[in-house]
Amino acid sequence: MTEPKKKRFLSGMRPSGSLHIGHYVGALENWLRVQHEYECYFLIVDWHVMADHMGEVAMIRKNVIEVALDWLAVGLDPNENSFVVQSQVPEGAELQSLISTLVTVPRLNRNPTLKAEIRQLGKEQGQSDEEADDISRARVSVAFYNYPISQAADILLPKAHLVPTGDDQLPHIELTREIARDFNRLYGEVFPIPEALIGRVPRLVGLDNNGKMSKSLGNTIQLGDPAEVVTRKVMGMYTDPTRLRATDPGHVEGNPVFIYHDAFNPNKEEVDDLKERYVAGKVGDVEVKRKLAAALNTLLEPIRDRRAYYEQHMGEVRDALYQGTQRAKRLAEHTMAEVREAMGLSSYFK
Amino acid sequence: MTEPKKKRFLSGMRPSGSLHIGHYVGALENWLRVQHEYECYFLIVDWHVMADHMGEVAMIRKNVIEVALDWLAVGLDPNENSFVVQSQVPEGAELQSLISTLVTVPRLNRNPTLKAEIRQLGKEQGQSDEEADDISRARVSVAFYNYPISQAADILLPKAHLVPTGDDQLPHIELTREIARDFNRLYGEVFPIPEALIGRVPRLVGLDNNGKMSKSLGNTIQLGDPAEVVTRKVMGMYTDPTRLRATDPGHVEGNPVFIYHDAFNPNKEEVDDLKERYVAGKVGDVEVKRKLAAALNTLLEPIRDRRAYYEQHMGEVRDALYQGTQRAKRLAEHTMAEVREAMGLSSYFK
Repeated sequence: MTEPKKKRFLSGMRPSGSLHIGHYVGALENWLRVQHEYECYFLIVDWHVMADHMGEVAMIRKNVIEVALDWLAVGLDPNENSFVVQSQVPEGAELQSLISTLVTVPRLNRNPTLKAEIRQLGKEQGQSDEEADDISRARVSVAFYNYPISQAADILLPKAHLVPTGDDQLPHIELTREIARDFNRLYGEVFPIPEALIGRVPRLVGLDNNGKMSKSLGNTIQLGDPAEVVTRKVMGMYTDPTRLRATDPGHVEGNPVFIYHDAFNPNKEEVDDLKERYVAGKVGDVEVKRKLAAALNTLLEPIRDRRAYYEQHMGEVRDALYQGTQRAKRLAEHTMAEVREAMGLSSYFK
Repeated sequence: MTEPKKKRFLSGMRPSGSLHIGHYVGALENWLRVQHEYECYFLIVDWHVMADHMGEVAMIRKNVIEVALDWLAVGLDPNENSFVVQSQVPEGAELQSLISTLVTVPRLNRNPTLKAEIRQLGKEQGQSDEEADDISRARVSVAFYNYPISQAADILLPKAHLVPTGDDQLPHIELTREIARDFNRLYGEVFPIPEALIGRVPRLVGLDNNGKMSKSLGNTIQLGDPAEVVTRKVMGMYTDPTRLRATDPGHVEGNPVFIYHDAFNPNKEEVDDLKERYVAGKVGDVEVKRKLAAALNTLLEPIRDRRAYYEQHMGEVRDALYQGTQRAKRLAEHTMAEVREAMGLSSYFK
C-alpha cells in the first residue's frame, strides 16, 4: 500500500439544486479550510438520489451541474481537488458488490442511521413514526437499503483517510471501518482504515425558525441570491415572538437572527454589542437585521461574482466535473486492480 | 433494440469442481442440444459462490477451470458459444446496482426461492427448518440476499431471450421479467423480456438412492471416472432392498438402477426387456448392472477421451474461458452503454 503525498479527504453532497447558506455553514466552509491541506474528493451523490427518484435523471443531472457551479462560486479549487459525480464511476458498484459479501443482513439491519433514513422516506405521507415506518418499509428499494454499503464503497474506492461527519452518519463510517478491516484481514492490506472527522456539523435553522432549511420550504438564502433579495429575506426573518416593541427585553438564545449573526458576522464585537442591547431592550429588530444583511452580503458578494462568471462559462463548470471525475475514475480503476489482485480474481486465465 | 441473428440462450452452473452424470442429465445434455440453434452463454457463477465462501477464491478458481474442462469434454463448442466467468464481467455489478432501484425490499423478501436458499445455508448446522432459518438469518451476507437481483443482471446483461429453468428457479426469472418491463417502461426499450424455458430438469438420485447427488457424499459418477471405476460404482449401487435373490419379483419404480437405465441407456428395447424380467424375477441384479455400466461407459468413453486431451492442453481450457468471457464482456459493455444512454447517464458532461 503506497501512501499518497497528502492524506485523502472525502466528503459528499446530495445534488439538491443550487445551494444555500445552510450548505455553506454545514460543509463548504469546512471544505474551503481543508482544500489545500488534503487531497480532497468532493462527491456529488447523484446515484443515491436515483435510488429513490428513478426516472428523474434529467432533473438530477441539472442539479449536479448547479451544485458544481456553487462549489466553484464559493471558491473550491477544481484543479487541486476533485469534483466527482458518483454515477460516473461504475467501479463503485463493483466494489460495493464485492464488499457486500463481508456484511451480514442483521448487521445492516442494526444500522440506526439506515433505520432513520428509511423512516424519513415515509414521513411525507405518514404522520407518526409508526405510520412512516410502515409506508417506508413497503416502498423502500433494495438500492436504498444497500446504501450504507454503497457509501462504504465510495469511501474505500479512493482510499480516503478522512471523512468529515456528523453524529448521525457515524454508524456508516463505523461500518466502513469494519469492512476495511475485514477485507485487509482476509486478503491483505489494501485499504487504510478511514477516520471520521467528527466535528460540530452546524445545522442552520430556516429563516422561519423551522429546524429544516430547504429551498422548497422557501426558508433559505441561496448562495446566488442578489443583495436586495438577501436584505428583503433577512428583514422578514422570524425573531423573538415575545418582543412586541424595541424597548421590550428580547431573547437571544434560539433566536434565528442571532444564530445567523453568530454564524455569518465576523465582527464579534458588533454581535456582542447587539446581543447586550437586545436583551436590555435597547435596540430594534430593524437595526439587528440590517447589520445581519450587511454581514451576509459581505460574505456572499464574492461568491455572487464568481457565480455570475461561471454562469456565463458553463463549459468550465462541466469541465471541472469532467476532470475531477476522470481523476477519481483512474484512482478507482487502480484501487479495483489492487482489490482484484489481492482477492485472487485477477489471474483467472493465467 | 437491434436483434441478434440467433436468439440468445443463457444458463449457469456453480463452480463445484469436476462434474458428474447428474450435471449431464440436468443441464449439459440440454445444452448440447441447443448449442448450434442459439447463441449460448454458459455462465460459471463463481461470484455467487464467493458470496458465501469469502477467502476461498483460489479453490473457487480451480473449480472454475475444472468445470470448463468438463464442458469441453462433453462436447460444448467454445467458439460458437461463450463460456463466461461471472466474476470477470464487472459490468454485472454495475447493472445490478442500477436495477436494484427497481425492486422493493418487500418484493425481494417475498421471493420463495430466496427464502429456500437462505434456509439451505443453515441446514448444515440446524436440524429443523426453524433452526436452519434462525442460523441462516444470523449469518446470511448482503451479497447473498441480493442474489436474485444479481441473477437478473446476469440474464439482462447479454440480453438473453431464453433461460432454461426448473420450477424452483422460476421466481428469479419472474423477477427478471418484471425488472426488464419496468426498465423499458421508464427508460425506453432496451431489454428483451426473457422467456423461461421450463422443462423437466431431471434430478438424478445418487448411487446410494440419496436424493442429493454430490461428489462430497461419494455417491456420484464423475464424467472423468475411468471405465473400471464406473463399473465398480455401478455394481455397488443401491437397488431394490426387498429383493433377496434373483428369482424374487423386483421393483422397478424408484429403483436407482432403473432410473439410471432410463436416463443413460439409449437401447429402449433392452431396458424394457430388463424391466419385464426384473419384475418377474427372471434376471439377476448383476446382469442389470453390467448392462447399465456398459451403457454408461459407451456414453462416457468419448467424454473421457476429450477430457484426457484437454488435461494435457490446459492452455486451451483457459483460452476457452478467456475468449468466451471477453466476448461476454464486450457485449456487456455494449449493453451498459445503451442502458446509460437510455437512463440519461451518458451525457452528464455535455
